[in-house]
Amino acid sequence: MNTILVLNPNTSEAMTEDIAKSAEQAASPQTETIVTNPDIGPESLESYYEYHLAAIAMLETIADYRGEVDGVVIACYGDPGLYPLKEVFDVPVVGVAEASLATATLLGHRFSILVALPRAIPMMENMVHWYGLSNRLASVESTNLSVLELEEDKDETVDALSRAGERAKDAGAEVLILGCSGMAGLQKRVAERTAVPVIDPVENAVKMVGLLAEQGLVQSEAGLYQTPPKKDIRGDMPGDLSR
Amino acid sequence: MNTILVLNPNTSEAMTEDIAKSAEQAASPQTETIVTNPDIGPESLESYYEYHLAAIAMLETIADYRGEVDGVVIACYGDPGLYPLKEVFDVPVVGVAEASLATATLLGHRFSILVALPRAIPMMENMVHWYGLSNRLASVESTNLSVLELEEDKDETVDALSRAGERAKDAGAEVLILGCSGMAGLQKRVAERTAVPVIDPVENAVKMVGLLAEQGLVQSEAGLYQTPPKKDIRGDMPGDLSR
Amino acid sequence: MNTILVLNPNTSEAMTEDIAKSAEQAASPQTETIVTNPDIGPESLESYYEYHLAAIAMLETIADYRGEVDGVVIACYGDPGLYPLKEVFDVPVVGVAEASLATATLLGHRFSILVALPRAIPMMENMVHWYGLSNRLASVESTNLSVLELEEDKDETVDALSRAGERAKDAGAEVLILGCSGMAGLQKRVAERTAVPVIDPVENAVKMVGLLAEQGLVQSEAGLYQTPPKKDIRGDMPGDLSR
Amino acid sequence: MNTILVLNPNTSEAMTEDIAKSAEQAASPQTETIVTNPDIGPESLESYYEYHLAAIAMLETIADYRGEVDGVVIACYGDPGLYPLKEVFDVPVVGVAEASLATATLLGHRFSILVALPRAIPMMENMVHWYGLSNRLASVESTNLSVLELEEDKDETVDALSRAGERAKDAGAEVLILGCSGMAGLQKRVAERTAVPVIDPVENAVKMVGLLAEQGLVQSEAGLYQTPPKKDIRGDMPGDLSR
Amino acid sequence: MNTILVLNPNTSEAMTEDIAKSAEQAASPQTETIVTNPDIGPESLESYYEYHLAAIAMLETIADYRGEVDGVVIACYGDPGLYPLKEVFDVPVVGVAEASLATATLLGHRFSILVALPRAIPMMENMVHWYGLSNRLASVESTNLSVLELEEDKDETVDALSRAGERAKDAGAEVLILGCSGMAGLQKRVAERTAVPVIDPVENAVKMVGLLAEQGLVQSEAGLYQTPPKKDIRGDMPGDLSR
Amino acid sequence: MNTILVLNPNTSEAMTEDIAKSAEQAASPQTETIVTNPDIGPESLESYYEYHLAAIAMLETIADYRGEVDGVVIACYGDPGLYPLKEVFDVPVVGVAEASLATATLLGHRFSILVALPRAIPMMENMVHWYGLSNRLASVESTNLSVLELEEDKDETVDALSRAGERAKDAGAEVLILGCSGMAGLQKRVAERTAVPVIDPVENAVKMVGLLAEQGLVQSEAGLYQTPPKKDIRGDMPGDLSR
Repeated sequence: MNTILVLNPNTSEAMTEDIAKSAEQAASPQTETIVTNPDIGPESLESYYEYHLAAIAMLETIADYRGEVDGVVIACYGDPGLYPLKEVFDVPVVGVAEASLATATLLGHRFSILVALPRAIPMMENMVHWYGLSNRLASVESTNLSVLELEEDKDETVDALSRAGERAKDAGAEVLILGCSGMAGLQKRVAERTAVPVIDPVENAVKMVGLLAEQGLVQSEAGLYQTPPKKDIRGDMPGDLSR
Repeated sequence: MNTILVLNPNTSEAMTEDIAKSAEQAASPQTETIVTNPDIGPESLESYYEYHLAAIAMLETIADYRGEVDGVVIACYGDPGLYPLKEVFDVPVVGVAEASLATATLLGHRFSILVALPRAIPMMENMVHWYGLSNRLASVESTNLSVLELEEDKDETVDALSRAGERAKDAGAEVLILGCSGMAGLQKRVAERTAVPVIDPVENAVKMVGLLAEQGLVQSEAGLYQTPPKKDIRGDMPGDLSR
Repeated sequence: MNTILVLNPNTSEAMTEDIAKSAEQAASPQTETIVTNPDIGPESLESYYEYHLAAIAMLETIADYRGEVDGVVIACYGDPGLYPLKEVFDVPVVGVAEASLATATLLGHRFSILVALPRAIPMMENMVHWYGLSNRLASVESTNLSVLELEEDKDETVDALSRAGERAKDAGAEVLILGCSGMAGLQKRVAERTAVPVIDPVENAVKMVGLLAEQGLVQSEAGLYQTPPKKDIRGDMPGDLSR
Repeated sequence: MNTILVLNPNTSEAMTEDIAKSAEQAASPQTETIVTNPDIGPESLESYYEYHLAAIAMLETIADYRGEVDGVVIACYGDPGLYPLKEVFDVPVVGVAEASLATATLLGHRFSILVALPRAIPMMENMVHWYGLSNRLASVESTNLSVLELEEDKDETVDALSRAGERAKDAGAEVLILGCSGMAGLQKRVAERTAVPVIDPVENAVKMVGLLAEQGLVQSEAGLYQTPPKKDIRGDMPGDLSR
Repeated sequence: MNTILVLNPNTSEAMTEDIAKSAEQAASPQTETIVTNPDIGPESLESYYEYHLAAIAMLETIADYRGEVDGVVIACYGDPGLYPLKEVFDVPVVGVAEASLATATLLGHRFSILVALPRAIPMMENMVHWYGLSNRLASVESTNLSVLELEEDKDETVDALSRAGERAKDAGAEVLILGCSGMAGLQKRVAERTAVPVIDPVENAVKMVGLLAEQGLVQSEAGLYQTPPKKDIRGDMPGDLSR
Repeated sequence: MNTILVLNPNTSEAMTEDIAKSAEQAASPQTETIVTNPDIGPESLESYYEYHLAAIAMLETIADYRGEVDGVVIACYGDPGLYPLKEVFDVPVVGVAEASLATATLLGHRFSILVALPRAIPMMENMVHWYGLSNRLASVESTNLSVLELEEDKDETVDALSRAGERAKDAGAEVLILGCSGMAGLQKRVAERTAVPVIDPVENAVKMVGLLAEQGLVQSEAGLYQTPPKKDIRGDMPGDLSR
């Protein structure tokens, strides 16, 4: 039995509940999940500035679970804090975005990411470039709905996602990824409407961390994710793990 | 409960047994595996010519399991027949190579593939290029042992793999992948010796197909893997699914 | 005098005749052509599944000509069976697609491929990626005519090709390639209408194999195309060259 | 007259002094510099974890200078906190690394970065990939000296840098970049020994921010660096600019 | 005090005057500029043929200034003659295009180049590819105005540039570059209209050469830009520096 | 019958004779060749500066043959003047380098270029990048012999080429290209020694221009190679085609 910590990096409890629903779908006899969010930090994450605050906040939170969990999921599309968390934890840490891309590579040659507002487009394109997967990205498509609007009227949201999905297919997408936690629970309806596989990144990432943990696989200590050397941190900083 | 068909594409029963051992490690309360090989075709696969013969042979074999399995693993590093099988089956079909690369992307920035003989190097480099993942490949390293030799003396094989792994680390690898079924069962020993994560592609792929099946995800019908239209096949050809 | 075997990989004699017309245009005092097709296999090729069946069928056919021809052309845009045939034959084997791309690089910076139906688009894009030439591909454009329709009304086909060619030029194409044997014989009319160079892949490939043969050049035995080692093939398989 | 804030992102005053020396070289009648470091955070930066702590610490520090400076230099090779700082400030913010790469593109086709210890190599390679400039990177070379050792014996450091520079030239480098502030002041001696242009990133970045400020150029509000929307930050977090 | 030679590569004095206006904006207490054009060669440059003639003409002109200037700017977007001039001069030689791209990398992730007529589009795309920066290019957009028309009605030109800029933003551009000297002096108006940073390449390049000269940086003698060996040039050729 | 002009871009008659020998091997009943060199310009070409002088000189020479030849080969590895000549002539113009790369793509996945002295390495690497074929380049290898030395002792030259070829094979090359006219006539001996296909670029390019001419194919008037508009050229410049 593995315990997976599913961490919503922002401080919105409403979103943590959405994430919990997706995480539940990934439940299995081998996997138990804890879903939570930090006590401090931004209510939502739409910029690198907020990503950095959230990363610090998550470091605080996860420190409490050290030794008690077998894997960690960062449950915000965009994978804020992914690299620092991979460095400092000795259980597998997986971002919902990187896991969704890994899964998408098995389902089609090119995939698209559906996001809430247009401002996310360059950040998502950049993230896929960082992961070295740009030549398998068909497009990033916006629903033009804010996170709040996504949650208001689910039928309308399915409509907006399906329209974005059709644009994605025109751009060559064979697989769609729901790039915002506010889209949780709509995977099957959008898949039916667009007739292509649709990935729920939270459900998928929980299963992916399980897959790693069951094989005894943890991010490498060689190269990019090696554990930082112990050193003095001046001042009283949240996220200071040397305390 | 999902039933996964694990298919050794060549006709060597010895290798099918090796593969069965790796597949067993992936067993779980949700997953049952059937491990088999075609009745016809080459004894081992070292060329595109043999890959094509094996693909035809697999088509014959899998046709027998249509409707009875929830997923298929092609258990030969190199993924022979992957695209045709993805096209014609309506359950998830996964190659051990493509699945190992998907997993490796979560464990480090760059990975290396360890192969038996040098002749596999250009084929593996080419395969990673096809999958669009060349910029995360550190190198392909040969043990200079034939498949037979790999199986003879396991201690020597661990030595050879560890030496190849060290060369891979010098080339920037953070993760190693055992790129030949004859290396089955050595994952943990090589990981210990090289101090980096080591992936057993068969074990990993069985789990990955499970992960897809549990989420109801199948390769896309849009784009590259769409089902071929029905049409006349002249003559009596193995692999003819229109019969 | 070189004898070039021009092989239509499918079993449609009508298409073999079209191919023969293009091959004739390539005739010269130094080059004689034999145009034929396999006895077995699919009537047309629109998927990787059919490509694999056709590859096996071609292996059967070409075996009959071993020692009698100085070069082989695979006359189906998409180059089915190209890698296995390059491996097992010791005369130059050239696909009409790869040859058309090689020629196009000398005529403009970016080229487009005109295909029959949209389903060919991802396969052609993928093929160009495999060949490492994606950054010189402007687009793949569909005429939205089936192979049958292409042959029905040649004036309408020229219209459809010219419209597709104009879209290609808008996408940056400087050179057009007729990506289907059903377009044979229309090269000059489309070139006149679009005012850019248009390549007939069959005519071009026959000349290209001649160019190689006259220089004594054959695909390399080092690397990707090395001859497979002799080994046992179990069962009675078409394409088994060890018999 | 422009005032440029040169920010050492770590809390080592010794390193701030080194940086001040390089910054001085960039002094001009148009440019005044303020060199400082945050009050809180790590003593040195060797991981993404520490980069994130430093980014938060810098946000605190820079907030004090808002409205008083015409440009900001992040003076740690690796550009920690670059994206968040570009987002939240309305004067040009430049990282010493990105500026050094921009300058290097004008001096040769390929450049190498010289770093202190090998652990920096994958981080620097990754950074150059993020900036989309990998095809102009020849290599990242380590001196195998820690930051402390770099400062101890300057003659030995010049020797180590020159040896690393020769390896870089063998790898195709035409330009060298001193990728650590502990190498400040050695630019001319290394250039003399290796006979290629050597960039001091701090001096260069101060001038580069000046060049931007004098032209009225600030990072774009469209796309990646747009200002984050105002929102609630829960808790008392350093780096919270909404206070 | 540095003296920068700003060279209009064509023989149009009207354009030399435009360039002089942009160069003036870059004036500073440290920098003096000489703006001139060759006595021979084409009136405007729209092809590689004309680029080559202009390169030869510039070699003649610059030879006169050898030893008297501290840097050279090639003031035609497209950087004609850049590589030969970098090879033969021992002061920094910078093209306005390469300098604009270097600067743009600091202001946004992706940039667009605005050009006069569509025929410049493939040349500019190719140039950015040569510089290895294609993945940061959003698009090249044409105003559909000839160089003459650009100069006629400045209000209309600002309109045309702003419309092209909006198309560029739709294509993902965060930064715009005025890719023609006839657009000189319109930087601020276009920036106001499009609300993104706009680069005047001449002003920027003069400052960039200053930045290099002040740091003692000259293009590398290793690799691509090494000085050609002395050798016999037959005949009486303009551009022959061995005389 | 096609007449192909084979142009040695430098003024060395000795090298023109070498080229003539290679061109002869390409003779056929359909193809007649004229081999010549310009009256003016450098004796050998080792820099972009010299490439530009040679381009101007070739423009002079070819103007004399306008209307009399059916194709042009630029017979210096590096393809000096290729783009201007493609623009201004209305028969196919092919560089020996671009043609050798096109041919090499049909013979193996990766190729290497063998050059005289190391200074050619970055120029050749850059050229292959320009042509968009870097991912099929294994390496550029130097014989460390000057052009003069290459011609002195043919046995020693074959030794040096074979040693360079073996290094190339270690780097992954499946095909070798003789990247200097001084290596003419050694193709077969080096192929025998290295057991991989070896391309003589002059022989190959003559045949390739024949292949284009016989198909009525000329470089495109759309895009990169469109004919320059007529315009005034000031002064008396060699290469001025408006006279």
